[in-house]
Amino acid sequence: MVVAQELDLERFVLAALAEDVGRGDVTTEATVAEDAICTARLLLKEPGVICGLPVADAVFRALDPTVVFEPSAADGDRFEEPTDVARISGRTRAVLTGERTALNLVGRLSGIATLTRRFVDAIDGTGAEILDTRKTTPGLRALEKYAVRCGGGRNHRFGLDDGILVKDNHLAAAGGISTAVRRLRAAGTRGLPIEVETDTLDQVDEALEAGADRILLDNMAPAQLREAVARVAGRALLEASGGVSLETVRAIAETGVDFVSVGALTHSARSLDVSLEVLP
Amino acid sequence: MVVAQELDLERFVLAALAEDVGRGDVTTEATVAEDAICTARLLLKEPGVICGLPVADAVFRALDPTVVFEPSAADGDRFEEPTDVARISGRTRAVLTGERTALNLVGRLSGIATLTRRFVDAIDGTGAEILDTRKTTPGLRALEKYAVRCGGGRNHRFGLDDGILVKDNHLAAAGGISTAVRRLRAAGTRGLPIEVETDTLDQVDEALEAGADRILLDNMAPAQLREAVARVAGRALLEASGGVSLETVRAIAETGVDFVSVGALTHSARSLDVSLEVLP
Amino acid sequence: MVVAQELDLERFVLAALAEDVGRGDVTTEATVAEDAICTARLLLKEPGVICGLPVADAVFRALDPTVVFEPSAADGDRFEEPTDVARISGRTRAVLTGERTALNLVGRLSGIATLTRRFVDAIDGTGAEILDTRKTTPGLRALEKYAVRCGGGRNHRFGLDDGILVKDNHLAAAGGISTAVRRLRAAGTRGLPIEVETDTLDQVDEALEAGADRILLDNMAPAQLREAVARVAGRALLEASGGVSLETVRAIAETGVDFVSVGALTHSARSLDVSLEVLP
Amino acid sequence: MVVAQELDLERFVLAALAEDVGRGDVTTEATVAEDAICTARLLLKEPGVICGLPVADAVFRALDPTVVFEPSAADGDRFEEPTDVARISGRTRAVLTGERTALNLVGRLSGIATLTRRFVDAIDGTGAEILDTRKTTPGLRALEKYAVRCGGGRNHRFGLDDGILVKDNHLAAAGGISTAVRRLRAAGTRGLPIEVETDTLDQVDEALEAGADRILLDNMAPAQLREAVARVAGRALLEASGGVSLETVRAIAETGVDFVSVGALTHSARSLDVSLEVLP
Amino acid sequence: MVVAQELDLERFVLAALAEDVGRGDVTTEATVAEDAICTARLLLKEPGVICGLPVADAVFRALDPTVVFEPSAADGDRFEEPTDVARISGRTRAVLTGERTALNLVGRLSGIATLTRRFVDAIDGTGAEILDTRKTTPGLRALEKYAVRCGGGRNHRFGLDDGILVKDNHLAAAGGISTAVRRLRAAGTRGLPIEVETDTLDQVDEALEAGADRILLDNMAPAQLREAVARVAGRALLEASGGVSLETVRAIAETGVDFVSVGALTHSARSLDVSLEVLP
Amino acid sequence: MVVAQELDLERFVLAALAEDVGRGDVTTEATVAEDAICTARLLLKEPGVICGLPVADAVFRALDPTVVFEPSAADGDRFEEPTDVARISGRTRAVLTGERTALNLVGRLSGIATLTRRFVDAIDGTGAEILDTRKTTPGLRALEKYAVRCGGGRNHRFGLDDGILVKDNHLAAAGGISTAVRRLRAAGTRGLPIEVETDTLDQVDEALEAGADRILLDNMAPAQLREAVARVAGRALLEASGGVSLETVRAIAETGVDFVSVGALTHSARSLDVSLEVLP
Repeated sequence: MVVAQELDLERFVLAALAEDVGRGDVTTEATVAEDAICTARLLLKEPGVICGLPVADAVFRALDPTVVFEPSAADGDRFEEPTDVARISGRTRAVLTGERTALNLVGRLSGIATLTRRFVDAIDGTGAEILDTRKTTPGLRALEKYAVRCGGGRNHRFGLDDGILVKDNHLAAAGGISTAVRRLRAAGTRGLPIEVETDTLDQVDEALEAGADRILLDNMAPAQLREAVARVAGRALLEASGGVSLETVRAIAETGVDFVSVGALTHSARSLDVSLEVLP
Repeated sequence: MVVAQELDLERFVLAALAEDVGRGDVTTEATVAEDAICTARLLLKEPGVICGLPVADAVFRALDPTVVFEPSAADGDRFEEPTDVARISGRTRAVLTGERTALNLVGRLSGIATLTRRFVDAIDGTGAEILDTRKTTPGLRALEKYAVRCGGGRNHRFGLDDGILVKDNHLAAAGGISTAVRRLRAAGTRGLPIEVETDTLDQVDEALEAGADRILLDNMAPAQLREAVARVAGRALLEASGGVSLETVRAIAETGVDFVSVGALTHSARSLDVSLEVLP
Repeated sequence: MVVAQELDLERFVLAALAEDVGRGDVTTEATVAEDAICTARLLLKEPGVICGLPVADAVFRALDPTVVFEPSAADGDRFEEPTDVARISGRTRAVLTGERTALNLVGRLSGIATLTRRFVDAIDGTGAEILDTRKTTPGLRALEKYAVRCGGGRNHRFGLDDGILVKDNHLAAAGGISTAVRRLRAAGTRGLPIEVETDTLDQVDEALEAGADRILLDNMAPAQLREAVARVAGRALLEASGGVSLETVRAIAETGVDFVSVGALTHSARSLDVSLEVLP
Repeated sequence: MVVAQELDLERFVLAALAEDVGRGDVTTEATVAEDAICTARLLLKEPGVICGLPVADAVFRALDPTVVFEPSAADGDRFEEPTDVARISGRTRAVLTGERTALNLVGRLSGIATLTRRFVDAIDGTGAEILDTRKTTPGLRALEKYAVRCGGGRNHRFGLDDGILVKDNHLAAAGGISTAVRRLRAAGTRGLPIEVETDTLDQVDEALEAGADRILLDNMAPAQLREAVARVAGRALLEASGGVSLETVRAIAETGVDFVSVGALTHSARSLDVSLEVLP
Repeated sequence: MVVAQELDLERFVLAALAEDVGRGDVTTEATVAEDAICTARLLLKEPGVICGLPVADAVFRALDPTVVFEPSAADGDRFEEPTDVARISGRTRAVLTGERTALNLVGRLSGIATLTRRFVDAIDGTGAEILDTRKTTPGLRALEKYAVRCGGGRNHRFGLDDGILVKDNHLAAAGGISTAVRRLRAAGTRGLPIEVETDTLDQVDEALEAGADRILLDNMAPAQLREAVARVAGRALLEASGGVSLETVRAIAETGVDFVSVGALTHSARSLDVSLEVLP
Repeated sequence: MVVAQELDLERFVLAALAEDVGRGDVTTEATVAEDAICTARLLLKEPGVICGLPVADAVFRALDPTVVFEPSAADGDRFEEPTDVARISGRTRAVLTGERTALNLVGRLSGIATLTRRFVDAIDGTGAEILDTRKTTPGLRALEKYAVRCGGGRNHRFGLDDGILVKDNHLAAAGGISTAVRRLRAAGTRGLPIEVETDTLDQVDEALEAGADRILLDNMAPAQLREAVARVAGRALLEASGGVSLETVRAIAETGVDFVSVGALTHSARSLDVSLEVLP
């Protein structure tokens, strides 16, 4: 994981625990002795790509720094069979109190990594890349984009501040593509490339002429995409989006676009089934 | 929405915006004039239960208190056709900068409310109720549990502090159901009812004898559930869980259990398709 | 202490120190060399129940993680004579700067534990239990309720979210006990028992009929309490409150109620005299 | 109230409410309609000095900015009979949810103001002034010191940073009064006066010679205090402390000291009985 | 000012006030009546570019929302004579307590805007642009970069996350320019352009060959810069840095580079003399 | 460094890093292997007083607790030649990501310490002392005042709460010096000395008569200052301010005033040139 995430991970995990633990884990505090210790295994119960092990580690350490978390897999590993992915040893209270928070996070992140991997595999050999979007869960963007990378996808911009994407509403407000792009250059872009969203081939031409660095081709059929690729002829990067499913993604990628962006990676991935079992 | 959520909603929305906006919305600030105003509509694009309109309202107000958000639907309303659910008027910059954060939240919450509604409808007339679990997204529990209520479901405990649920790992640590329950009573339960998780009918008997107020029947087949209902005979509340899908839920509910809890409501709901369109 | 308190204790102690230390301890920084070390004793100077030693430990550790705090008593221990309850060794500056914050907390918590113990002892053998209330110091509820437990008392609900108590003002707003209880069941109680406050025996009957799980008997004389116990006959738990003092508590407890709740435990306990002395 | 307290009051009140309300006021949300409104009175039920009305105002406004809080008394007013001190009108839910937090604060602050007033009255005409100490509740120092002022007392330093007080432990570390004072002058005092704690008349002489601006006379009998006053002869301000009660304070004040400091004002004041009643 | 800054401005201003006001403005609270009001003028006392008026407005509003701040100039305006730039009306206490914090901010930001304007004017007509750097004051980056824009400068990247700049230490760690650039492309750049720092013309060639989008020419003499411009021939953007002063900047800009970056804009600007005067 | 600063330093440094690192250091994460380690030197490149080494240490430790920071100089040391002041060993990523934040802080603080030292040296032997003011950078006051001490200067009050300074605007509001001072004594000063700002010798007389403990002589010429010193004759401390430069400060100090306060120390110091070099 990257340095910036490490800076924030502890705070994020503490907030997640505070939300779940509230005023205290009534059940565990009453039924488990304060000095009881245990070893537990973290088990991935269905096929998929594991993701979030360092996050789970941080959850248990936040509750008790003496808990030892030993992963036997690395984020991004893919498994076809149920597999133990980590072993956790330490104070039983910390293990049981942190269990649900850890599982919620690993399950969700693994779900995203697994879905991403399926999209990436589906376009294997086409030369295109799978991108994520800003359709992430509020509060979890950095982690969810990390999960996309673990699944073999590429990250689009992290937020509204590190990428420029002129969408239809901006065009309407600015009065057209060329005005919008000119305003951007006048305001200063800090070197960020300018991407323009287009719905038609005419708009593609206009964006190209205005000097767009990247062009988003929204909801275009493969034939249209192919035509856009031909017209642009490498003078801008092309990103297809809209209506992308595991069924359609390969046909889209084969048109020659550089990127296919898929909102479903983060907004509609199902959590993977992960469980924690205390060993006898 | 409830008072406690209102207390926190502003802070939550500010954090969500900070995550997306970061150091500033480069595109909007350059292409849209500071004093431009607009009216936009929030559109539910597929059948489902709308949820999160007050949250969207809070998003736009956080960016600009003068934005007017006028809902034409209420959280919990179900629509079979694409429908406008709100109208937003105000500074164009605020509308465009807040768009993605608002849509991410409304899409996710509506997805949960819609899935919940399908489960609730599936058991209509059985007398059982659909419960959620603690398998929620870290940071969004209060909102996701609110979405469950909007879909007609009931909330299980909000966290580890306002409900007692003795699970297998607690039983292992305590050395059995009766010891666990006795320890709980000795420690003081603040009046909270004691629920015990069971895998077998023998455990159900044991829990009953120990004085459990509620019994969780985990991964039991309908026949087993029916037998549990008969044995308990109203002396404790019964909750079925595990392997619950839209296909299986009615058979489970018809066994006579009081509650069916469904983790998928919150951990695997697909976001609903919601969009924002600036009116010309 | 419990996990949830540990999660928050560090933050609480840092805020308490920030309040006292402000921009720096002018006196200590000027008069005590940075590398000077010392050993000090924490002394309980009057009879009572000690409480808050782990909190004092956290205060000194927050200022300097190398300070060693060795308790020679445990929270809840009762002493009849002045007694050393801990020894603190480390950087003199940290010991002197943390002294007042540590003493303020230990003094207050020991005061609560001591007063609680007196009430608990006063009803020894009656079968009733002493409960605290929500009349705690803002910011210190978890610690003050912990002190009540150290004194042998039981905790009532921790807040408005983990217990239901229908008071006179709720009854007025709802239009009566039976409506209020029915609304609660309709809204969903997450399994929390419903407690209803009553002032008269008629209200007790009404609460019982409405299905209340617990009944609060407010400001009733022992004779009335005894009658209430007789009428309810075990169908609900009974809690006496109002006008409870060390003089009256035994008579109240002997009526057969299950609980006697005492606001004074936390709102009017006198701090115990505790001091810190640097050893020569 | 002062500007700095106003800056923090909102945050303090939100934290206090968060502690009490937690995940929501289950009872009120179920039993009271969202749009119900009411008028309530805040009633001081026993003789004393009222304090904390602006704090109570802030509590209700934090829950609902439309609540109107109309005080009919001012902080510092003394009453001999039970008296209505404010009227609160607005959403019933906000009134009921905020009730306990408001009462806890007003009760505690009024208790401090009342006790302070008794000490101040007890030394009326002596020329001495009653001072508070740093023996306050962590998190409430600014408010408690405000209550002392409302009771007619004077504030000693607010923390370790805005006053210099060389106590026995500092003297031990520095090796004597003259060294300690010299070190302070060398380190820079930002103009803060230097106060030195003394236990004997010899120490008083030493402090005077070292140039102390104020001398704390700890645990001295009236005769000793009188002798100290004579020796110092106005060359430094004198503060008596230790063993001060309502019985002893006048004799102490009559010795001619400038100040008498009383820890009990804040660490052992009993809360005043204050209640909130919804009007029919 | 931009939306993101507005989101944070209130919090920033509250922290600045907390730092200065601490436990309260002793002088103002004692000498100025609570209900006194006044009108004051904000005066720029020396020639320069004014900057920070909305920040000053936020300072006074944070202390008292009823204060009215009426600017008579706009951020970025240049004045040759002492000029009133705003009028402030409201509670005298708020005006006096906020004075220093407001002046500290306006003075510093105006200093940066003024220095930037001098650099921008010095290269007028050359076609090059003045860039800032990350050599800003911790905590004030967004405001200081805003001041640079008010002075006519352009912003370089806002942080380590929205721009790529491969510096000598990265090159040493990666083992050369081509490896570093290749690794960046492999890791995914989210579309961010790659800038490489060079000290020699050979490195410029290497960077060009590796496909750098921008090349930083560090500490090169004008002749060298001119040669670099010729070699690159528009295939990458060029930025000169190092040893840039008001004396040297024009010669540097005339070499044909696209940008000249100047750390001194933010790390060594002198505060402008600004004062606040209460009108009689 | 002092205890209070240590309490806050970690939080300050984390905020500074968050501002610079944002969503992650794209360049370093891509070009530097996660397990690469290095040793670097921190180099003061121009003559001056070094300041901020413990702050730099905290920056690197915040990114990676295993980084070892070994200073070879102490804050306050003066160097005439470029000098290595510290060696940093550890994970290369942490060293490179923290570099700019550490340099920004050390450069600024050393600039302040160096400028202070020049003022202090300029008045050597006069008996007067150099004071700082509240004209500091918002968020950095404690550190900047620490830098002043490292340069041999004295600190004036830390904020509006630990010192009383009656300025012209207060006098206007109070209606004159004697009223203002009387109000202060009535309100209670917590023992803080009262300083009054004066512009004329008549005001000096008035302040003296009112019982001011310190008198600020604002913008007076040396002759006037000398006359003020003569009139006051030791009955109050005297501080000269206004129009103080390295050229004028000695003449001011030689008038016999106790203090000369200099806003430029903190509001207009140029950052010292400090760099970090990874050793081969």
